[in-house]
Amino acid sequence: MDSRPLLQQLVSALQCLPSVGRKSAQRMAYYLLEKNRQGGMSMSAVIDKAMREIKNCERCRNYTELPLCDICSNVKRDDTMVCVVESPADAAAIEATASFSGKYFILMGSLSPLDGIGPEEIGLDKLQLIIEEEACQEIIIATSATVEGEATAHFIASMVSHIENKEIRTSRLAQGVPVGGELEYLDQSTLALSLANRQNL
Amino acid sequence: MDSRPLLQQLVSALQCLPSVGRKSAQRMAYYLLEKNRQGGMSMSAVIDKAMREIKNCERCRNYTELPLCDICSNVKRDDTMVCVVESPADAAAIEATASFSGKYFILMGSLSPLDGIGPEEIGLDKLQLIIEEEACQEIIIATSATVEGEATAHFIASMVSHIENKEIRTSRLAQGVPVGGELEYLDQSTLALSLANRQNL
Repeated sequence: MDSRPLLQQLVSALQCLPSVGRKSAQRMAYYLLEKNRQGGMSMSAVIDKAMREIKNCERCRNYTELPLCDICSNVKRDDTMVCVVESPADAAAIEATASFSGKYFILMGSLSPLDGIGPEEIGLDKLQLIIEEEACQEIIIATSATVEGEATAHFIASMVSHIENKEIRTSRLAQGVPVGGELEYLDQSTLALSLANRQNL
Repeated sequence: MDSRPLLQQLVSALQCLPSVGRKSAQRMAYYLLEKNRQGGMSMSAVIDKAMREIKNCERCRNYTELPLCDICSNVKRDDTMVCVVESPADAAAIEATASFSGKYFILMGSLSPLDGIGPEEIGLDKLQLIIEEEACQEIIIATSATVEGEATAHFIASMVSHIENKEIRTSRLAQGVPVGGELEYLDQSTLALSLANRQNL
């Protein structure tokens, strides 16, 4: 049992949140104690429940408290397209655009052999099963445009091309000038890429 | 019972923390789920315990889970000096300087008649009892240098001056150029004040 005063324990505990240091934790502690004890108590209950009950969806590995997540169990979603992303936050970002009606597969990371993260750790065996056994016709690889993300994308593309008895289209998110971006301030690589990948009007 | 997915509930719940919006709450939720479930669970337990058990110290009104806070129950602290501050955070800031060995009295706010906060709401009746019945010889008024803080300071000073049968010294935190401050960038009022209150070398 921690022997420090409870207020000190509260301040330390809040520091387990990302980018919350001692000063912010102190401010949060005083705020909760002074203005929102009820909110603090219900937040505590929800955090505890979430930490215990949220698991990974059995199909797409996204976070959910049910065996299958909302999207995987939704019969209105298009079974023929699977969007592969690195994290649940990436899937949420794509969902927020409301321009994708297929299903997802969450890698929960990206290939990083040096850190011991191989194809199995990011669930590629499961992805292969989904491609082989479900109605999937297109894999949209939406990993980040980082070195690890690109490597992972290439690995998945090669895996998909080796699947027999099925014609699967593999695509990658378009790269280029972001909407509202000014050419003057764009980095050289992106600009070169958007020139090479220019599209007919 | 909230019918939204537990992850959404978690994100909403975390937004009850000060200056945490939807985006930060989402980042916190993913971080806890992915990297620190154990930390999340123990944080939840500490928050719940703190919200239920932290009360105000019977003497100084600071936060504590005991009847008397650490400082009020510490016999080594100087009983003859009482430092009056607006909030527990202010008391913590003074404690951090390690240059005050007396006791505190926390107003938990400042006088604000328009908001219905009068002398009783900030516990001045309790402060008067402390001054009259304890060994108190000096009151250091360390309220903020804001309009409300100054008004509160004047009110307390006048209250103390009306206490009979006891000679109480009343003081206020010094105002002037902050350590490391450059005169060029100091506001006019502070500079004028520091000139008027100049000290002999």
